[in-house]
Amino acid sequence: MTDIIFPRLALIGIGLIGASIALASRKAGTVGSIAISTRSPATLKRAEELGLGDAYFADPAEAVRDADCVIVCVPVGACGAVAEAIGPHLKPGCVVSDVGSVKAAVVRAMAPHLPAHVNFVPGHPIAGTEHSGPDAGFAELYQNRWCVLTPAPGVDPAAVDRLARLWRAMGANVEMMSAEHHDLVLAITSHLPHLIAYNIVGTASDLESGIRSEVLKFSASGFRDFTRIAASDPTMWRDIFLANKEAVLEMLGRFNEDLSTLTRAIRNGDGDTLFDLFTRTRAIRRSIVAIGQDTAEPDFGRRDHGRS
Amino acid sequence: MTDIIFPRLALIGIGLIGASIALASRKAGTVGSIAISTRSPATLKRAEELGLGDAYFADPAEAVRDADCVIVCVPVGACGAVAEAIGPHLKPGCVVSDVGSVKAAVVRAMAPHLPAHVNFVPGHPIAGTEHSGPDAGFAELYQNRWCVLTPAPGVDPAAVDRLARLWRAMGANVEMMSAEHHDLVLAITSHLPHLIAYNIVGTASDLESGIRSEVLKFSASGFRDFTRIAASDPTMWRDIFLANKEAVLEMLGRFNEDLSTLTRAIRNGDGDTLFDLFTRTRAIRRSIVAIGQDTAEPDFGRRDHGRS
Ligand SMILES: NC(=O)c1ccc[n+]([C@@H]2O[C@H](COP(=O)([O-])OP(=O)(O)OC[C@H]3O[C@@H](n4cnc5c(N)ncnc54)[C@H](OP(=O)(O)O)[C@@H]3O)[C@@H](O)[C@H]2O)c1
Ligand SMILES: NC(=O)c1ccc[n+]([C@@H]2O[C@H](COP(=O)([O-])OP(=O)(O)OC[C@H]3O[C@@H](n4cnc5c(N)ncnc54)[C@H](OP(=O)(O)O)[C@@H]3O)[C@@H](O)[C@H]2O)c1
Repeated sequence: MTDIIFPRLALIGIGLIGASIALASRKAGTVGSIAISTRSPATLKRAEELGLGDAYFADPAEAVRDADCVIVCVPVGACGAVAEAIGPHLKPGCVVSDVGSVKAAVVRAMAPHLPAHVNFVPGHPIAGTEHSGPDAGFAELYQNRWCVLTPAPGVDPAAVDRLARLWRAMGANVEMMSAEHHDLVLAITSHLPHLIAYNIVGTASDLESGIRSEVLKFSASGFRDFTRIAASDPTMWRDIFLANKEAVLEMLGRFNEDLSTLTRAIRNGDGDTLFDLFTRTRAIRRSIVAIGQDTAEPDFGRRDHGRS
Repeated sequence: MTDIIFPRLALIGIGLIGASIALASRKAGTVGSIAISTRSPATLKRAEELGLGDAYFADPAEAVRDADCVIVCVPVGACGAVAEAIGPHLKPGCVVSDVGSVKAAVVRAMAPHLPAHVNFVPGHPIAGTEHSGPDAGFAELYQNRWCVLTPAPGVDPAAVDRLARLWRAMGANVEMMSAEHHDLVLAITSHLPHLIAYNIVGTASDLESGIRSEVLKFSASGFRDFTRIAASDPTMWRDIFLANKEAVLEMLGRFNEDLSTLTRAIRNGDGDTLFDLFTRTRAIRRSIVAIGQDTAEPDFGRRDHGRS
């Protein structure tokens, strides 16, 4: 039996991430009641139909009024406005968090609107799918995934610990780091890969129509993995690139330098340079499999006809 | 019951692709006997242990002597030398094919060594995993995947048809096109995605060690898909980039132009340009799902804890 960690949880924003928190924390028995608020009447109604919470509010200020914990689950670019709307209504001791994929910019946007009597513990669960909205949520999303918390140095350790326990009870492994460090690591592990995937799928979509249809047909040869990544939510990703601009541009600069070297090797027929890089990257894959972030099972592309 | 299409099949090279042909055509009952030859004694011994063929030869010339069909399953850069070795020993009417991921360069390398009395029908099964060697082979690899054949205009249609039937009996969907068109389509659907994946994994592996270990840890956020692609066989891919240089450089040029536009949009905080591209790429994904090249199932990253 897990004890109740927060008698009253409020979720502002109830898409994939918020809905999954509702389902997972309910399942874990770590919250007493869940109050939900979201921008549009349609999403709020859908959340109610799905039975994600105990009370539903059009106005976020009402949803947070008695909350012991508030988690803001909206796109990064909307976090500041939400903080402004709820700030004056937060009760003393409340733990305020978010789930944004960028941290420093979110802290800059939210912190000025939060009263001194709350504990602000920004967070980012590193888990997701390419689907959005409350229907996409499911209780197992955070199982065995990382959740990074980036509390500022002065924050009450007891508040950080309570939020960490909430995430652990949802199955996540909690990691602490500074907001700036988080943003640099995610720029290379997540933001740059998404940018590259968006870019190559864009390049393909601009091809002459004769080739274009065959690009779809023969997508299984590598391209398809990129299209999955490039199907991620446009609003969320626009906000991420705008909010983590410096770190993304820094990593993009390194990527471009490396790509120039590789291009030169192809143009000059320099097989050794290609072979050396391709051998080095294989080792990275082995490390990832070794630390359990993926399996060594071959990927046949589609699930429907693998060896079983 | 399928009839025997080729009484004697010879496979030169018996890695992932060759071994899967052996297993699949045996299972389909379309070949009488299978002769196998490969460069190294160790691989030949392993093929024999796995029972992939009926006869095993160190010398490819001996393996092809009575063959009705010979499929060369070695890296693209080695196809010319294999053709030179087997050319004088091929029997009249023999169907000679290959499985190379690049077609025009392979045709240029092999054709001069093949006698006029054989039928040369180059091929490329668009199926694979990131694993290599005879142990990686399995009979279902070609199920529901494309196999592209690129016969020159003058080749005997009956020979093309026999080879097409062999592939269809292995579960593949056969498509005909010119070698040059194949190379352009594959440059964007396969070669460029691999190059980009190799490059970004290389960039990450050059990071300062403090960030590097976290790149592995948080790889599930997008990077991991790239490492799987970048774990593909270094020899095979070196050969592909050298052999399909022009088409790859052409696609790389377009990719770079698009990336400059995207970089500028990030630098200028131009959210509309980002949003528009990200919306356009989502539509491409939907087309791929619609034509059955992938499922709409969310990808949780790891197979071990998805909803089932
Ligand atoms: N998806 C992932 O893979 C993933 C992973 C980790 C973290 N995150 C982070 O989680 C957050 C939410 O992502 P999600 O995938 O749950 O998104 P989602 O499914 O699209 O849901 C977004 C939620 O935010 C609300 N919202 C959107 N724009 C808003 C605005 N301008 N003002 C106020 N509310 C707004 C939506 O409200 P209405 O529907 O009522 O309009 C909805 O409730 C983002 O910050 C993202 O960076 C996402
Ligand atoms: N893997 C894929 O995803 C994929 C997909 C479609 C097409 N293809 C094409 O299929 C072909 C083989 O790929 P694979 O994945 O089967 O490779 P693999 O598993 O590495 O097997 C390669 C085979 O070629 C032999 N070989 C390697 N270098 C050689 C050389 N210099 N001279 C003569 N023989 C040599 C190897 O012999 P030893 O082991 O005896 O040295 C082995 O029998 C390549 O042309 C590739 O472009 C691959």
